[in-house]
Amino acid sequence: MSELRWDPLKMSWVVIANERGRRPRDFILERETVHLAACPFCAGNEAKTPSELFAVRPGGGAANGPGWKVRVIPNKYPILRIEGQLDKKGVGHYDTINGIGAHEVIIETPDHDRHLADLSVAEITDVLRAYRARMLDLRRDGRFRYLLIFKNHGLEAGANVPHSHSQLIAVPITPTVVATKLSVCREYYERKERCLICDLTDQEVADGRGVVRDDGDFVVFAPFASCHPFELRIVPRRHGHDFGLLDDGALALLAETLKDTLMRLRAVLRDPAYNFVLHNAPPMHPRLGKPDYWSSLPYDYHWHIELVPHLIRPAGFERGTGFYMNPAPPEAVARFLREADLSVSR
Amino acid sequence: MSELRWDPLKMSWVVIANERGRRPRDFILERETVHLAACPFCAGNEAKTPSELFAVRPGGGAANGPGWKVRVIPNKYPILRIEGQLDKKGVGHYDTINGIGAHEVIIETPDHDRHLADLSVAEITDVLRAYRARMLDLRRDGRFRYLLIFKNHGLEAGANVPHSHSQLIAVPITPTVVATKLSVCREYYERKERCLICDLTDQEVADGRGVVRDDGDFVVFAPFASCHPFELRIVPRRHGHDFGLLDDGALALLAETLKDTLMRLRAVLRDPAYNFVLHNAPPMHPRLGKPDYWSSLPYDYHWHIELVPHLIRPAGFERGTGFYMNPAPPEAVARFLREADLSVSR
Repeated sequence: MSELRWDPLKMSWVVIANERGRRPRDFILERETVHLAACPFCAGNEAKTPSELFAVRPGGGAANGPGWKVRVIPNKYPILRIEGQLDKKGVGHYDTINGIGAHEVIIETPDHDRHLADLSVAEITDVLRAYRARMLDLRRDGRFRYLLIFKNHGLEAGANVPHSHSQLIAVPITPTVVATKLSVCREYYERKERCLICDLTDQEVADGRGVVRDDGDFVVFAPFASCHPFELRIVPRRHGHDFGLLDDGALALLAETLKDTLMRLRAVLRDPAYNFVLHNAPPMHPRLGKPDYWSSLPYDYHWHIELVPHLIRPAGFERGTGFYMNPAPPEAVARFLREADLSVSR
Repeated sequence: MSELRWDPLKMSWVVIANERGRRPRDFILERETVHLAACPFCAGNEAKTPSELFAVRPGGGAANGPGWKVRVIPNKYPILRIEGQLDKKGVGHYDTINGIGAHEVIIETPDHDRHLADLSVAEITDVLRAYRARMLDLRRDGRFRYLLIFKNHGLEAGANVPHSHSQLIAVPITPTVVATKLSVCREYYERKERCLICDLTDQEVADGRGVVRDDGDFVVFAPFASCHPFELRIVPRRHGHDFGLLDDGALALLAETLKDTLMRLRAVLRDPAYNFVLHNAPPMHPRLGKPDYWSSLPYDYHWHIELVPHLIRPAGFERGTGFYMNPAPPEAVARFLREADLSVSR
């Protein structure tokens, strides 16, 4: 079983795999596309995957059979395992937690050759419904402190299975970068009675130069202090801490924004590899209240999506210091994306 | 001129380039090796670079002429410029500083084909003397809050000029990851009257499983909570906050450790791309004392080097959340490196 370890100097958690007998050269290779005789994510190959946890089947039909539009399964090679109780230990100055968690795959389409940007708004809405369903289910598990939903598109972004999919990882800790955002928003709210993310979004909209699109429900902008070229933030204009509380109508509006954004990126950058991460408030800490208290809690966080194409490799010193160089001014990025010719986006 | 921008949500600084007229596809390409008719870093081509700032010339000779062993020059394409006064402004919720700083290149050898690991201990000592000299010079400039010394080796690690070199960047802010380490060490010292990095190193040495080498002066270990496969920390056993205070004898001992570590990595991983970063205490804040007060200040920080080979690409969600997966248990990494057959390391 893998193990989570806390570094008190860097103040961060890491998941350490505990596989044995590996040779050093197992770590030399870059990630490579997995070539499989038959793609386990394709329609008709349902038997090649673990049993499904959720599916959108408009015409009905049995679980693990055909007829689905979106299908969620446990990852066959999970980095964290669902079975067992949390075991937290100090090891001198370090802390450890055994590798308990969940690692799920959201298969976004039965069709091997269609990417997320190719799906219709209705189909993307189904993907978002799957995100919401899995989030609402997993947050009832008191062992998990945070639920990460993210997508890797393209080999450079870590997607070694080409069939379009997203992932959900439930972890027994709050990741560092998320914890920073949460505490910054809390402090800001306590001082000002306003949401920092609302205020930043208002400033971006008022300035306008970084805005890619704004339909009144969701705004997409290249943040003024973007760390990476073509980094984008997708923010709901209406303050809300919890993606899980969105209704189907809001999911459809988000799907429209997401499709349009991905089409623009594709038109301007020719199908770049990218990641997006859904930044949501964490589930309630089990000691703070009963789980359903969560759903009515007014909260100082504001959920959003961060999307980063992989255009340049960060040098290690950037990782080691947190000091990034961004060669693409966000104002220029937003202009390129606003002016994108969507007719060339396949 | 470039601009530093502060993101109050992510709590981090970024350098945004302000070049105009670039097309989107300028950001599509991965870094590529720069092919030059004649390498400007080679002996005999001194006129192709800006005037040198420092050189080791054992046989004497004029600046910018031949006969040097190590040569430091301003970067011809600096990300920050040395001329001008700091101009700090708020832009709504964001903060900005104009792109004042220094960006220097330490050419480690006049020979195009020798890497740092190929140099003798005496030659590497000269490289470290150059680090020290430039650090001591630049810290007299009150505009700079931090001096970053780092090395990129190999294209994947960001070295697009193959001739072996390191870099120094002086910045008007303290980078996020460094600031975290500094404040953690300060808090620990205030509570315990002990240094956190001394204590962590003692724990690693006592445990022993992560230790690669320990000659009593410098210890090299794969930290228990390493974020990256084959990540290594090089720590002086004697507590000291300031690399700049090392004498030539200590630099020679460090050079021996560094050469041995690089040879082991090369033997085990076949010349991997890597970065190392020198983590040093920042220069004294100009408001806190006169600059020479620095050199005698007892300090709660403990300088060290972090070395990370580029073996797997971090997926964006790792960058976006600070949540890393490390497939290589540090105990196995240390064992591989301890048992390395150095006769195969070229």
